[in-house]
Amino acid sequence: MKCFLKYSKFCDFPIENLPYGVFSTSQNPSRRIGVAIADSILDLSEVSHLFAGPELKNHQNAFKQETLNEFMALSPKAWKEARDTIQSMLSEDNPILKDNAALRKRALVPQSDATMHLPAKIGDYTDFYSSIHHATNVGIMFRSKENALMPNWKHLPVAYHGRASSVAVSGTPIHRPNGQTVLADGDAPIFGPSRLMDFELEMAFFVGGANKHGEPIKMDKAQDHIFGFVIMNDWSARDIQKWEYVPLGPFLAKNLGTTISPWVVTALALEPFKVDNYPQDPQPLPYLRHEDKFNFDISLQVDIAPQGSNVSTTVCRSNYRYLYWTSKQQLVHHTVTGCNMSPGDLIATGTISGETSDSYGSLLELSWKGTKPLTLLDGSQRKFLQDGDTVVMKAVCEGDNYNIGFGTCVGTLLPAKQY
Amino acid sequence: MKCFLKYSKFCDFPIENLPYGVFSTSQNPSRRIGVAIADSILDLSEVSHLFAGPELKNHQNAFKQETLNEFMALSPKAWKEARDTIQSMLSEDNPILKDNAALRKRALVPQSDATMHLPAKIGDYTDFYSSIHHATNVGIMFRSKENALMPNWKHLPVAYHGRASSVAVSGTPIHRPNGQTVLADGDAPIFGPSRLMDFELEMAFFVGGANKHGEPIKMDKAQDHIFGFVIMNDWSARDIQKWEYVPLGPFLAKNLGTTISPWVVTALALEPFKVDNYPQDPQPLPYLRHEDKFNFDISLQVDIAPQGSNVSTTVCRSNYRYLYWTSKQQLVHHTVTGCNMSPGDLIATGTISGETSDSYGSLLELSWKGTKPLTLLDGSQRKFLQDGDTVVMKAVCEGDNYNIGFGTCVGTLLPAKQY
Repeated sequence: MKCFLKYSKFCDFPIENLPYGVFSTSQNPSRRIGVAIADSILDLSEVSHLFAGPELKNHQNAFKQETLNEFMALSPKAWKEARDTIQSMLSEDNPILKDNAALRKRALVPQSDATMHLPAKIGDYTDFYSSIHHATNVGIMFRSKENALMPNWKHLPVAYHGRASSVAVSGTPIHRPNGQTVLADGDAPIFGPSRLMDFELEMAFFVGGANKHGEPIKMDKAQDHIFGFVIMNDWSARDIQKWEYVPLGPFLAKNLGTTISPWVVTALALEPFKVDNYPQDPQPLPYLRHEDKFNFDISLQVDIAPQGSNVSTTVCRSNYRYLYWTSKQQLVHHTVTGCNMSPGDLIATGTISGETSDSYGSLLELSWKGTKPLTLLDGSQRKFLQDGDTVVMKAVCEGDNYNIGFGTCVGTLLPAKQY
Repeated sequence: MKCFLKYSKFCDFPIENLPYGVFSTSQNPSRRIGVAIADSILDLSEVSHLFAGPELKNHQNAFKQETLNEFMALSPKAWKEARDTIQSMLSEDNPILKDNAALRKRALVPQSDATMHLPAKIGDYTDFYSSIHHATNVGIMFRSKENALMPNWKHLPVAYHGRASSVAVSGTPIHRPNGQTVLADGDAPIFGPSRLMDFELEMAFFVGGANKHGEPIKMDKAQDHIFGFVIMNDWSARDIQKWEYVPLGPFLAKNLGTTISPWVVTALALEPFKVDNYPQDPQPLPYLRHEDKFNFDISLQVDIAPQGSNVSTTVCRSNYRYLYWTSKQQLVHHTVTGCNMSPGDLIATGTISGETSDSYGSLLELSWKGTKPLTLLDGSQRKFLQDGDTVVMKAVCEGDNYNIGFGTCVGTLLPAKQY
């Protein structure tokens, strides 16, 4: 399989990837669905008539929408047919685009000319807590080494419902939030900008298809509902969180904004990067068991670029494969009560920390609650984020002949607004 | 103000009420917006041309939608003009409907012929925890009398993000969920139907208008974003909740389904029933303070009707006025971080319990964790809900000359499905 566009073997978006996104351009400000290929975007609204296979010929309209929800609502067969069709369109053996200069000009847009938008209208967003190293680190910091993991943690994938409205696409600036915090236990709360702003390195999947209210998605069907993945920065105000979260969980500490990368890398593209699931001991209850691999070798990296500095510092290297619970287990657990999923719902992993102290996915862990400040390459120190810091997250599957890249998830922390 | 339709002074839906809902009929299965009046529904899609005032003449399309979101997106001025226009249409002094038999026949539908639907597409749903008696009762049961309220409780309205997709309209049956529970602390979890199913008596408001991400709704604008109220039953699986909720809050215990009444009673209709706000000590931080009344005298009642019995038993009488935190405070707190609201977002009060043991808003409290079973009128006992139980919640403002009723919020608990 060879694309008629040229790119290096380290390109995030080879013909084996083909992630979906929603973009606009200054010449054409209407939002449309595209696929990243090399440093271009294939505008699917311009080639929708080429989706002529049995699964898609009556659903070409799904490629002319302003979000991916309608496409996500289709079946795994349709997603596979779309992938095959796009790979064929872009193949150097196929003249349909390669030899049609007019269509190529309409349908191929440089990524540098595009503004990216949220890929889907997110109905509901859920955040899991599925990294055993992250949960253990937080447990040690806030309780003790002996009681680091709560009794339920290894029996079920812990999660909470998040705020869907404030999920934003990469590049959206995030303001440091105002809120209530206490300076010392027992003090009265004060109001003002959070002092302990953090990132959380996560990934998330978009739900495809749906289940009816009252009808759980069981393990044998779970994979059919996992459309594709993005990188996520779950910005967290640690001081607000500490004061507010008992007993009902995180609320304002997280709803200030959650950033996702714009390109949805499909589960199909990740197939070659499957690795063994994380060993689970004790064995989970039968409804959560699956023997097939649904874990992925995805290298993750977090860089911090201070304002005005042209040097960014890598502060974390982690990997998706450290997750204890699989996406399939998350989805099955989420719906076991009959909770209904819709196409475009977003399900996040929780912070992904590895075993070593340079693989922790948050500043809370990297600076160990502020006790071990990080020194950045420009000489400045960080316990938590400073105003003007840009946080850049990257994810990539590194293959022998090609990479499957996720692009970047970028956000700059702006100062708090006057309240 | 007198309506040309006749009804008793105890009718839920006099001309002073005019709650909005979405309905369909067997003759016309398309969903449309209506207003409850006496035992009829005024079909606004049939009279949209009559909204000819300055605020609405260019927004008549809002009355031809399948949900109220577009109408909720308009301004308080528009909502007031709509109310005035509908009151005028229904007035016995106005011939426009009264004397036009053809229009009356098209526009007035008996409520008994209608199927009600969710009034809005709910983008995000949030559940507060704003009843001091409820929070205290739960605190005593699970901690101790001395530590009943968490240190944050009187400083901020505690809340969590709920699941929007499984909010269902009154009448939707709810299945007892399957899930993980532990029989005794330290035991391994087991899987199966929840044994401790409960109702929670709540009310909720629909957000009107919107704020941009990063721009909080401040106290002086909060009322402009409170469109109207419904009754809510926040079904809760107590045994699932107990095992799962540490440390991130309720998840599956609540996402099995949340029932709301179909008629949205506007804040405008509730004006005459304003009462003093609940006294707050300590005084909250300045961003949460307001001097004007935004508390309401709304009588609440919960009945249980066992399957096959024709006797239902009132198990709780409570009142909205017991809420410690006002809706305005909830909304201001929710957005203080810049969290963005959309028209149709749903914000619930949390369980509304009064001071006395017959005013507690959940079976958990009424049966005091199962230690004091209730005896129903048919002689059966309840610690928690049994399969086949129908829970009926009612809310009404009782005035001297008329009532403002909310109708009912009804749901039957069906047995768990085989997993």
